[in-house]
Amino acid sequence: MITLVSGTNRPASVTRQVVDIYQSMLEQRNISSEIIDLVDLPEDFISTALYDNSGKNATFQPMQDQMLEADKYVFFVPEYNGSFPGILKTFIDGLSYPDTFKGKKCALVGLSSGVQGSVLAMSHLTDIFNYAKMHVLAEKPKLLHIENHLKNGKMVNPLFSSLLEEQIDSFIRF
Amino acid sequence: MITLVSGTNRPASVTRQVVDIYQSMLEQRNISSEIIDLVDLPEDFISTALYDNSGKNATFQPMQDQMLEADKYVFFVPEYNGSFPGILKTFIDGLSYPDTFKGKKCALVGLSSGVQGSVLAMSHLTDIFNYAKMHVLAEKPKLLHIENHLKNGKMVNPLFSSLLEEQIDSFIRF
Amino acid sequence: MITLVSGTNRPASVTRQVVDIYQSMLEQRNISSEIIDLVDLPEDFISTALYDNSGKNATFQPMQDQMLEADKYVFFVPEYNGSFPGILKTFIDGLSYPDTFKGKKCALVGLSSGVQGSVLAMSHLTDIFNYAKMHVLAEKPKLLHIENHLKNGKMVNPLFSSLLEEQIDSFIRF
Amino acid sequence: MITLVSGTNRPASVTRQVVDIYQSMLEQRNISSEIIDLVDLPEDFISTALYDNSGKNATFQPMQDQMLEADKYVFFVPEYNGSFPGILKTFIDGLSYPDTFKGKKCALVGLSSGVQGSVLAMSHLTDIFNYAKMHVLAEKPKLLHIENHLKNGKMVNPLFSSLLEEQIDSFIRF
Repeated sequence: MITLVSGTNRPASVTRQVVDIYQSMLEQRNISSEIIDLVDLPEDFISTALYDNSGKNATFQPMQDQMLEADKYVFFVPEYNGSFPGILKTFIDGLSYPDTFKGKKCALVGLSSGVQGSVLAMSHLTDIFNYAKMHVLAEKPKLLHIENHLKNGKMVNPLFSSLLEEQIDSFIRF
Repeated sequence: MITLVSGTNRPASVTRQVVDIYQSMLEQRNISSEIIDLVDLPEDFISTALYDNSGKNATFQPMQDQMLEADKYVFFVPEYNGSFPGILKTFIDGLSYPDTFKGKKCALVGLSSGVQGSVLAMSHLTDIFNYAKMHVLAEKPKLLHIENHLKNGKMVNPLFSSLLEEQIDSFIRF
Repeated sequence: MITLVSGTNRPASVTRQVVDIYQSMLEQRNISSEIIDLVDLPEDFISTALYDNSGKNATFQPMQDQMLEADKYVFFVPEYNGSFPGILKTFIDGLSYPDTFKGKKCALVGLSSGVQGSVLAMSHLTDIFNYAKMHVLAEKPKLLHIENHLKNGKMVNPLFSSLLEEQIDSFIRF
Repeated sequence: MITLVSGTNRPASVTRQVVDIYQSMLEQRNISSEIIDLVDLPEDFISTALYDNSGKNATFQPMQDQMLEADKYVFFVPEYNGSFPGILKTFIDGLSYPDTFKGKKCALVGLSSGVQGSVLAMSHLTDIFNYAKMHVLAEKPKLLHIENHLKNGKMVNPLFSSLLEEQIDSFIRF
């Protein structure tokens, strides 16, 4: 079971489209997966689920538990202002520490409208996950100019598809 | 006029204490300053002020305008999970781009309960602000084990005080 | 006077071509500059000029002095193995610390054969220069696929030329 | 078999002392290891073993082959100027690409005289090794003020010893 985290709360995001494509790729290999989409975070998340309110938001609690029980994650990381979305880090800040990530494994997929492919975002996230003692897969596909390579919910760039398939190959052995 | 940004929405934060100390140091030099504290972000900020809702939250709008009109910033950055607080980046994601930061100057102050002094947080933020074309001051004090060095709202570690004073010296010339 | 540092010791490098183009741009604005090219490092640099041998290599000494006396630098940084060339950091390790860089200002230009444009290299270098208390200009042009955009020693990509001109504009005011 | 890389060419380095301590810890678990010490790099390495001269230096060639044949590495990384030693990256630049590291696994140990514990050095190296498609272990001990914690070639800080033992535990399972 692999937990796919859609790393933005933007409604109807391109990121979620890529998550769905990735899930299809896993299905074709008979690998089960579940999706956690940050669009489902409660509206008042920042004031009712962090710090002294940790554990008190009934909507957030199931997401927190799901993250805690998961073993392997793939984080889909659109580039916002040269790094990851703030909401993704806020979500991480709201999880149980250190049990959620310690000793586990994850992979990262970077997406960007621009040319940078979320490369700094993934570098920053690697620092964060390593701090939390979670191992990060070396292969981190950078899907730049992503809007140009999606059509009707399908990936129409064969290079990008093969980068994702290679990441899955590597993640299975990781 | 220098704009001091308290980089967490944690109520009654240690970060805010350091901001107040810094403001006193500026006052003693007759440098005026204003404080933007992320604890004042509206509760539903993540769902009513980002993406297509940018500009639509009446509580957030004055903060956004204040950030836009500012010239020089000091960001106070506690270390959360090995980097900056997610809420600080979410706040940045909610500001006008590229006008808010382009061509401006800022300084960073790092705080941590642990030994790391927010050094990775400040590295990550530097990437983000440079991406936004804002110059970052080289001097980035790392106030590690910060709780041990504050007493009744005063900085009781002379080294930390001198690091902050040196940063102000350098920021004035920057 | 601006000191241009060609950041590789590879003979006849593309990096040096870009340095020469940059120097021409400065000349057209009547800004004087000098070039330090790492191809001129002595062959036995790593064993005769570092650590206890600092200051003992007669060929390296003039380069060290030139770096010490300079005020403003532009570093030209090709991407090797996802970061800056090791030789550039080794050169930095051989300079006087902390006098060489403290309180000074620099700009960075990234070059790559691949798609990444030396973005991580420039992030890493920014950490290093900030550690040494040197301010780094926010604008860091990323000249990706550089070989495709040079012809007979001229930059034939107008976008890249304008990025370099904008960097010079900003560096003058920095 | 684990390959331990002593990441500086400084003669009689503290780094090498830590490598020897680490090797003893491995021996006590009956794990065999070999040491590659950058102090053994040929004096003229930077001019006779890089770029078009790759493969032409008879002294360097065995080191290059040894790195190519290895499966698992631990890199010992002293902090020089806020990052890793330039010579370590120059060494990496001289290795066969992409075969040396692709698909392999490594661990990092950071050392510093100062308070930072080589944390940025290890972040930068992680970017480099991930670029080369080598997985990096999450646990990265930061042995700060290292000179204070060694005596007659022994580690006299029990916390540091246990951090290294925990890293070995984790690396075995990685």
